[in-house]
Amino acid sequence: MKFWFKNDYSFGAHPKVLDAVVAANMEGNWGYGDDKYTARAKDVIREKCGCPDAMVEFLIGGTQTNVVACSFLLKPWEAAICPHSGHLNGHEVGAFEATGHKILPVEVGADGKITPELIAPLLEVHKDVHLTKPGLVYISNATENGDVYTKAELTRLYAFCRENDLLLFADGARLGCALTSDSNDLTLPEFAKLVDAFYIGGTKNGTMFGEALVITRPELTKDFFRMKKRMGAVMEKGWIQGAMFLALMEDDLYFKMGRHANEMAARLQKGLVDMGWKLWVESPTNQLFFVIPNELKAKLDEICEYEDWCMYDETHTVIRFVTCFNTTEADVDGLLAALR
Amino acid sequence: MKFWFKNDYSFGAHPKVLDAVVAANMEGNWGYGDDKYTARAKDVIREKCGCPDAMVEFLIGGTQTNVVACSFLLKPWEAAICPHSGHLNGHEVGAFEATGHKILPVEVGADGKITPELIAPLLEVHKDVHLTKPGLVYISNATENGDVYTKAELTRLYAFCRENDLLLFADGARLGCALTSDSNDLTLPEFAKLVDAFYIGGTKNGTMFGEALVITRPELTKDFFRMKKRMGAVMEKGWIQGAMFLALMEDDLYFKMGRHANEMAARLQKGLVDMGWKLWVESPTNQLFFVIPNELKAKLDEICEYEDWCMYDETHTVIRFVTCFNTTEADVDGLLAALR
Amino acid sequence: MKFWFKNDYSFGAHPKVLDAVVAANMEGNWGYGDDKYTARAKDVIREKCGCPDAMVEFLIGGTQTNVVACSFLLKPWEAAICPHSGHLNGHEVGAFEATGHKILPVEVGADGKITPELIAPLLEVHKDVHLTKPGLVYISNATENGDVYTKAELTRLYAFCRENDLLLFADGARLGCALTSDSNDLTLPEFAKLVDAFYIGGTKNGTMFGEALVITRPELTKDFFRMKKRMGAVMEKGWIQGAMFLALMEDDLYFKMGRHANEMAARLQKGLVDMGWKLWVESPTNQLFFVIPNELKAKLDEICEYEDWCMYDETHTVIRFVTCFNTTEADVDGLLAALR
Amino acid sequence: MKFWFKNDYSFGAHPKVLDAVVAANMEGNWGYGDDKYTARAKDVIREKCGCPDAMVEFLIGGTQTNVVACSFLLKPWEAAICPHSGHLNGHEVGAFEATGHKILPVEVGADGKITPELIAPLLEVHKDVHLTKPGLVYISNATENGDVYTKAELTRLYAFCRENDLLLFADGARLGCALTSDSNDLTLPEFAKLVDAFYIGGTKNGTMFGEALVITRPELTKDFFRMKKRMGAVMEKGWIQGAMFLALMEDDLYFKMGRHANEMAARLQKGLVDMGWKLWVESPTNQLFFVIPNELKAKLDEICEYEDWCMYDETHTVIRFVTCFNTTEADVDGLLAALR
Repeated sequence: MKFWFKNDYSFGAHPKVLDAVVAANMEGNWGYGDDKYTARAKDVIREKCGCPDAMVEFLIGGTQTNVVACSFLLKPWEAAICPHSGHLNGHEVGAFEATGHKILPVEVGADGKITPELIAPLLEVHKDVHLTKPGLVYISNATENGDVYTKAELTRLYAFCRENDLLLFADGARLGCALTSDSNDLTLPEFAKLVDAFYIGGTKNGTMFGEALVITRPELTKDFFRMKKRMGAVMEKGWIQGAMFLALMEDDLYFKMGRHANEMAARLQKGLVDMGWKLWVESPTNQLFFVIPNELKAKLDEICEYEDWCMYDETHTVIRFVTCFNTTEADVDGLLAALR
Repeated sequence: MKFWFKNDYSFGAHPKVLDAVVAANMEGNWGYGDDKYTARAKDVIREKCGCPDAMVEFLIGGTQTNVVACSFLLKPWEAAICPHSGHLNGHEVGAFEATGHKILPVEVGADGKITPELIAPLLEVHKDVHLTKPGLVYISNATENGDVYTKAELTRLYAFCRENDLLLFADGARLGCALTSDSNDLTLPEFAKLVDAFYIGGTKNGTMFGEALVITRPELTKDFFRMKKRMGAVMEKGWIQGAMFLALMEDDLYFKMGRHANEMAARLQKGLVDMGWKLWVESPTNQLFFVIPNELKAKLDEICEYEDWCMYDETHTVIRFVTCFNTTEADVDGLLAALR
Repeated sequence: MKFWFKNDYSFGAHPKVLDAVVAANMEGNWGYGDDKYTARAKDVIREKCGCPDAMVEFLIGGTQTNVVACSFLLKPWEAAICPHSGHLNGHEVGAFEATGHKILPVEVGADGKITPELIAPLLEVHKDVHLTKPGLVYISNATENGDVYTKAELTRLYAFCRENDLLLFADGARLGCALTSDSNDLTLPEFAKLVDAFYIGGTKNGTMFGEALVITRPELTKDFFRMKKRMGAVMEKGWIQGAMFLALMEDDLYFKMGRHANEMAARLQKGLVDMGWKLWVESPTNQLFFVIPNELKAKLDEICEYEDWCMYDETHTVIRFVTCFNTTEADVDGLLAALR
Repeated sequence: MKFWFKNDYSFGAHPKVLDAVVAANMEGNWGYGDDKYTARAKDVIREKCGCPDAMVEFLIGGTQTNVVACSFLLKPWEAAICPHSGHLNGHEVGAFEATGHKILPVEVGADGKITPELIAPLLEVHKDVHLTKPGLVYISNATENGDVYTKAELTRLYAFCRENDLLLFADGARLGCALTSDSNDLTLPEFAKLVDAFYIGGTKNGTMFGEALVITRPELTKDFFRMKKRMGAVMEKGWIQGAMFLALMEDDLYFKMGRHANEMAARLQKGLVDMGWKLWVESPTNQLFFVIPNELKAKLDEICEYEDWCMYDETHTVIRFVTCFNTTEADVDGLLAALR
């Protein structure tokens, strides 16, 4: 098999997570999340987040979680402010608009991060009641390009949102890598206090599927289950989600996996940079972006799975390597050796 | 543990299905259904349905499948005709209306079946362009109350639909039990030819989750994947669905499980009727409905898991027992013994 | 010309209303309702309703007003309870469902009126979070069949709604006739206090178009204008609506027209009943429903415009006569003479 | 009164149009557009457009027409390509997204015009089925900034759309000025052949309200009336729309008004440019955009009604003057005199 650096959703569950699913398989559990695993997993997550009153609900995938959560949090006439490159805007086939909401895209830099300065002019324009009302800011941590928000940045952004009657929602598809990155200075409880809602992404970090949505302010959570069901997002065999997230939370497996993926990415990055490869953006997490000459692609295709990200110029392409919980040092060193 | 007859989604996957998931867990597969399992499972399903040109797509749960499929098949101004008791109408928190479509409910009998005679008056009224346009008929097989459509019934209904420019969609959450019922005279290929679209329900018959949607007429399938993604219904690790459905289809495991559940239900029904219990409706599949005096409920609660279905009268309740692939003769006989 | 009893929207504006439009035509007014007529008309309506804090907004037609108002007042997962025969359910081509909401129809009697007793069982069932949440009760006054709510009935219904966390919305397409009916014992301020929102229907009582939506509780009105604009319901030349409603309110023209239409209807009803015609329902307002033998229809078609309402039995039809502000005694007596 | 150059929707109907409404007011006409005026107006418009098979339907305002038409023409998963500055994107409070569709904005130049070159890269990216499918191109003629499409430009654009399976929709809010502009070389029939659908805007050119939607390809029009009704866009007293459009079409009143407005704008533009005023963009139609020093605004406010368009820089603002059918030479010369 080729070295696999294509993405972080090409392998199934971490063995401990899989074991938990297998163990519960024939027990007999009530459906729709009304089971002991789900109840315990919610408690553990609340505890780890330092949010005893938060609502925790399990959903199935990232697009679904973004769409259900953001459309739940907004009034019909409110829009979501989103980085132009944000997943909600660019990669979900209009799933959010399908719920009737407009996205107000904001051009952001290569780090993919949104700031009060980028939002303020848009708020000014949208005071006009003949325009849609901005109601929520969507960010991701890690961002689409792999960067992370610092405590100072998120503190400023959240304060700005609160002052301006905007909710702050964080897509945490890669939260495990974000909060264990060398660039990160946020604990999970600190992070949870600096957003109104976020999700702990399982799919890209150790589960077969499943995301844990956390709405930290209880006053925002009324009737969420009905909304979730209305969006077709309630699993009949919900205990599977609960069992997986319990396994993820045990011994901090979730964050250990995130840190491991980051370490493998850093090792690969160092190796490639040492070989003279050119970074497209600096990423302190598990996604690496390099600018390569187009003629290198044929060779790369033989050696490894990776992703064509975008055109850089006529003769160069941006490619992405992604590491995950089961990437090994041997994989990294093997790829580096093959490329030398 | 109490005897478990509550529903058919309280146990996980059949062991062979689970094995298939475990075996593929660390292989490395492309995401979003672009993998060898999914490709093979689609081929096998098309073959078993005798529809070489059908579209097969995997979705996650029943509500999602109903909603994505029906809203895909209809124009925005078209409505779905649905039995009043149909899942789409009564049990999905307005998930279908959330896509902008009206449901035109039709009162049906205790068998839950829809007929041309029940639809015709509604079509007459809705010729008026100031009313919504009926575009699709939603049925379930087995129905909500456990009955099945005969070949003659479905042939008449489908002919009527084609004549009246209505699509026919069948919710197959319990298709495995329907097509193996003693009352059934339809093969899978015959069934597939008598509807425009249907799904093979995995969740209630042997998978952890997952339904296989089949649209039998290729001219109706254009761009389905984009619609599926827009509805948040594409799994990143789609090979899990593929692997489960491949295992289901092998050696006809899917229909063997359905037949087994029916046999266990028949055994339980015979035992209870012999004891003098009163049936609410006749069901030839894996759901049984009995009218019991309210004072029996406390005792029943101690012995087994079952479901309170609805009030029958001041002093009686309708309850439901459900069997599934892992119900054993010992379970049935044990429950009967405990109730004697 | 034939005698015209077809409906109450076949003639344009009352001459005084038309004069007001003509007078303002070339003045130059700011657009989007930001003009002196609209401001004054809102004030006058608030005053006449005895609701100094109410929100008043002008919309264009009945379906639009029902849909914009009810979808504004509900959360996305909430449903509207509606008489089976209610306009929102039966006559709007799914316009309300198009905003993503389910309707929970309630079978009502021939008077078209909804009561706490009819709603209570539905609330009981819908406590289940796997079902949609009832959020609002839609009534019309006068009802589809021409009857009106008494003070006692509306007081009970509204109290029941408040206790059960349901909003009460009244479709007032024919409010002018309702509140001037002999069966009515409600003043406009009393009526306004017994609902959360309603509209004063202009289209069927003296304007070219236009309905005045009143939301009586200010805490429910935030951001309404944005919702209205999002629904394509803001007129550029909004002063036309303002000028028409100012004219309607002056000297109680609106209610004078309603009373006149009722008087003409009563005269016609008495005449027909005296001739032995059979009433289908008793209506104290401007719509009359009679059961006629089918063979009478050809003759009736020659004499007058009326509406075929529904089939009564194999040999009889229900027909509707409607009077309006410009129906004269001569029209009524002429029709009666022609029918003798 | 101040000189009025604020916009083209601050005066009511042209006297001949108003007369037509007044004349029909008490005639008695069937509702919902089923009347002789509407029938004739549709015929006349089809004839003037040279499209005997086109569908013509009357709607009420611009936002409504854009939204109803574009959502009717698209499948749910398809998006509309729209100039960033287009009305559909920027000025409709998410009304289009409220129907579930994404907008793909394209950055255009100061002329507001879209070209194949601007669309092509977007089509390339959106071949990916994980992204929304572009289904329609929205343009306006005249554009938001007052420019018009030439025959060569529109011919190229439409050919490109047809090749790429995109529909072309033209917002004709200001079509009267566009097709009578000195920069225009398109006749109405030529224009109609180079788009799939467009509307003849009444509100901004001589009616009280009302737009005539023309879908030129009959195969695209099935069931439009039901969609229109579902969107709350059917007027009960539809003959008013018919009568107004008949009056507009008689003796080419519509285009005479457009040409007049253009001439008044040209006179004003020449006068101001001669006085040294700085144009922001060149506009050959009835909207003029000038860059003025901020300190001029107070004086301008005293003299005339105009519109603040956007900030130009710290010390300058872009303002808009608009002429319409009732702008006189005296108005223009009076404003110029006052500004000297």
